[in-house]
Amino acid sequence: MSMIKAAELYDIALDVTQAKPLYLQLYDAIREQVLTSRLLSGFRLPASRELARALRVSRNTVQRAYDQLMAEGYLQARPGSGVFVAVELPDSFLRANKIAVKKRLPDCHGKRMRLSAFAQQMKVVSNMAAPRDQPFTPGMPDLNGFPQQLWLKLWHKALRQSTSVYLDKNESAGLKRLRQTISDYLRYARAVNCQPEQVILTNGAQQALDLICRVFLNPGDTVVSEDPVYMGMRNLFAAYQADVLPCAVDHSGMQVDLLNQYANESPSLIYTTPAHQYPLGSIMPIERRLQLLSFAERVGSYVIEDDYDGEFHFDCKPLPSLQGMDQSGRVIYVGSFSKVLLPTLRLGYLIVPQHLVAVFTQMKRLVAGMSDPLRQQVVADFIQQGHFGRHLKRMRLLYAERLQQILPLLKQKFGDQFKLLATGAGMHLVLMSNKKIDDVVLAQKIERKGFGCKALSPYYINHKKQYGFIVGFSNVNQEQMMRGVKAIFAAVS
Amino acid sequence: MSMIKAAELYDIALDVTQAKPLYLQLYDAIREQVLTSRLLSGFRLPASRELARALRVSRNTVQRAYDQLMAEGYLQARPGSGVFVAVELPDSFLRANKIAVKKRLPDCHGKRMRLSAFAQQMKVVSNMAAPRDQPFTPGMPDLNGFPQQLWLKLWHKALRQSTSVYLDKNESAGLKRLRQTISDYLRYARAVNCQPEQVILTNGAQQALDLICRVFLNPGDTVVSEDPVYMGMRNLFAAYQADVLPCAVDHSGMQVDLLNQYANESPSLIYTTPAHQYPLGSIMPIERRLQLLSFAERVGSYVIEDDYDGEFHFDCKPLPSLQGMDQSGRVIYVGSFSKVLLPTLRLGYLIVPQHLVAVFTQMKRLVAGMSDPLRQQVVADFIQQGHFGRHLKRMRLLYAERLQQILPLLKQKFGDQFKLLATGAGMHLVLMSNKKIDDVVLAQKIERKGFGCKALSPYYINHKKQYGFIVGFSNVNQEQMMRGVKAIFAAVS
Repeated sequence: MSMIKAAELYDIALDVTQAKPLYLQLYDAIREQVLTSRLLSGFRLPASRELARALRVSRNTVQRAYDQLMAEGYLQARPGSGVFVAVELPDSFLRANKIAVKKRLPDCHGKRMRLSAFAQQMKVVSNMAAPRDQPFTPGMPDLNGFPQQLWLKLWHKALRQSTSVYLDKNESAGLKRLRQTISDYLRYARAVNCQPEQVILTNGAQQALDLICRVFLNPGDTVVSEDPVYMGMRNLFAAYQADVLPCAVDHSGMQVDLLNQYANESPSLIYTTPAHQYPLGSIMPIERRLQLLSFAERVGSYVIEDDYDGEFHFDCKPLPSLQGMDQSGRVIYVGSFSKVLLPTLRLGYLIVPQHLVAVFTQMKRLVAGMSDPLRQQVVADFIQQGHFGRHLKRMRLLYAERLQQILPLLKQKFGDQFKLLATGAGMHLVLMSNKKIDDVVLAQKIERKGFGCKALSPYYINHKKQYGFIVGFSNVNQEQMMRGVKAIFAAVS
Repeated sequence: MSMIKAAELYDIALDVTQAKPLYLQLYDAIREQVLTSRLLSGFRLPASRELARALRVSRNTVQRAYDQLMAEGYLQARPGSGVFVAVELPDSFLRANKIAVKKRLPDCHGKRMRLSAFAQQMKVVSNMAAPRDQPFTPGMPDLNGFPQQLWLKLWHKALRQSTSVYLDKNESAGLKRLRQTISDYLRYARAVNCQPEQVILTNGAQQALDLICRVFLNPGDTVVSEDPVYMGMRNLFAAYQADVLPCAVDHSGMQVDLLNQYANESPSLIYTTPAHQYPLGSIMPIERRLQLLSFAERVGSYVIEDDYDGEFHFDCKPLPSLQGMDQSGRVIYVGSFSKVLLPTLRLGYLIVPQHLVAVFTQMKRLVAGMSDPLRQQVVADFIQQGHFGRHLKRMRLLYAERLQQILPLLKQKFGDQFKLLATGAGMHLVLMSNKKIDDVVLAQKIERKGFGCKALSPYYINHKKQYGFIVGFSNVNQEQMMRGVKAIFAAVS
């Protein structure tokens, strides 16, 4: 399932003048990359057709090399998903092949890399793809609606001052002016209760989540996670070797009453998406929020409130943030501009309780240094001059309209086999199948047709898996919508 | 020694209408921030004069509050360095004050934070200041010489394409085009031996160093570090709870023959700055480089080659990089554009051996996600169009000239008491005192006069400390040079 492209594979030089058949040359080359850990366990190899094209050989050549490698246990086929580097390569493989590898590849010695426990855990679980702007990709904003001219103007202004003025006003935690602006905005829009110094700017929300883990997690610590859950969080918890206690989700979000069973474990962190559960889309009502806060306070946990698309509520005004209801400094709020402005902006933020400001600021400085000030300057101007509010309003209307367009299409095509979830807010909805389907394979099939919806089942941890698709509707026009719905339908039929 | 500004301190509201004297109000407020860990152990408080000005009270008021807090053990004075939050607050303090604190500050409960071991180690050691553009600040480029107009033009080009085109071409490891450009440049300029996919873009060199630690270090692992050493690396090693084996430095860089004593420890990482030792400035000759590589290969260590200012060699062509001499894939090269272009750019990179490309790419994705593509686009254009080479050449001439100007000034003023080091390359030189001086206090004194040179002694780990100053000369004109040299002289006299 890893989406990392094995760039090295494409650099393999096959030589038709050699006596050795091409497929054996290719077999050797891939085997060596596996043995030397250039291709890591769990990596998906390119489709044989794709690799054949890149290497300018026949598809049959690639397939024969793959077959041989599968027969010998270096690769594994997962039906419908593709071919992967075997998850556990026995040590004996490495030992047996040490000499041969050494001779051919002086830069590696066939030694196993001495990776940290963190890096080793990461290998197993990380399957986050880089975002691609395909129709139906969840969380992808409509880029046509972006006020490009205005944006350029603000950049020009920021650039004219870029060589000197920012040095003194910038800090690891971000430009003061932007932190002020964000705290003003969140106070108004999300009822977040914060002072500017509580805002810690990050390079995207993923870094924000990582900083939280760094501040709190030791290997073996327990954490509570919604189940199903956002993959970026789950992958971090795994790499940090946290003991994840899953908490099931229903139509009102995280089932907070299930938390009591974990009280004795005294979890360090509780991860939740109360505004719009990811991926199921339910909204956590006030009573549960109060219950969650009181649990956190009682057992001494910090709550990560990931408000990844809280700006987009269509049916009703969104509930105020959990952070704003927190009387005891236990909530860490995470936000990002990727969805409300541009995915390429890579600007996220944390709102941390006052008593954690110093440690988060220092952590940011230690592990990532300052963020570059230009983007921060531009975003601060964009918000302060009122453009952000107007842009959000426009996008909210646009996405609401798109939701209204896609709902009847989906109901008509899928009404018998699928439930529709997450239809009141956000930038995606969920098609949940009434029966077990191989949604991973189907989603790959649909992606190859050019539509970026995601399989639902991989988001589940322990809870009874559900199957289906997470369908982003924010970046599709009507024509794409029609074609996309057809593509999903064709795949599942 | 922490340079974090205790922003909260300035938000304290003192009320002249209250019966309670102002100094007691201030005493209460600071004490509470200490007890609730809003001010962490080891933080330096603002100078009384500074805080007095911010709070609009007399300096005497602040001094009385500080005195009281010192008498009670909340704060500690370190003669000449300032006033700090006490390093170890006995638990009894927290217990004794729990009720009072709870009453006044409902968001904290006087509970101790459950910080990770990483965060706790960080607290003790982190004293990296955010970079400030003061004359004599080491590593600060001359910003007047920066081709601003040209830079703007390239930004405009990148911005015009910013909403969409980069999504597909970008990766966690960076824009493909920039990675190609950097590998071409480094092959030519630093004899680095690499393919584009080995280049991993980061948000500054600090993130690059952190990624290396994440990939390799478990708590308790041994690492070898030059001694004295760059503070950013040392702080990371401490936070990662690595067991640091110091290796002394002489006029030829790291004393590589000392490494043999560590062979049995099998260090995971060896940190070195062979092109221009930081801070002492010595250049590691070929023989030592070969010896270092052979040691690394023998014991299975990876070598971090931090080439932080390898572009600026004045007396002779710089030696090729260590990475380029490495036959066994044991060197990880770290570079940055902060010093050669703009410190606000926040763009660094790693060159990792082929067999580590996948794990570093995944690590970058997991903990920080993609870097924003705009800056990468601009830098790629800047290099490809030849501007970078020209800019470097101009800066090299300029810095060489400045070095020639400052050397006689320093010799004349300090020739009796100080040795001059690091005079053949780079952006800083070292004034090393013949006797023990309180360089930390003196550097603070000089900084208050507006000159950013750094004290030398804190860079030492175990090796016999030397005292003096690290003086950046790349960002000073002749007039600043004269005044700065006088300021140092006045301080040390």
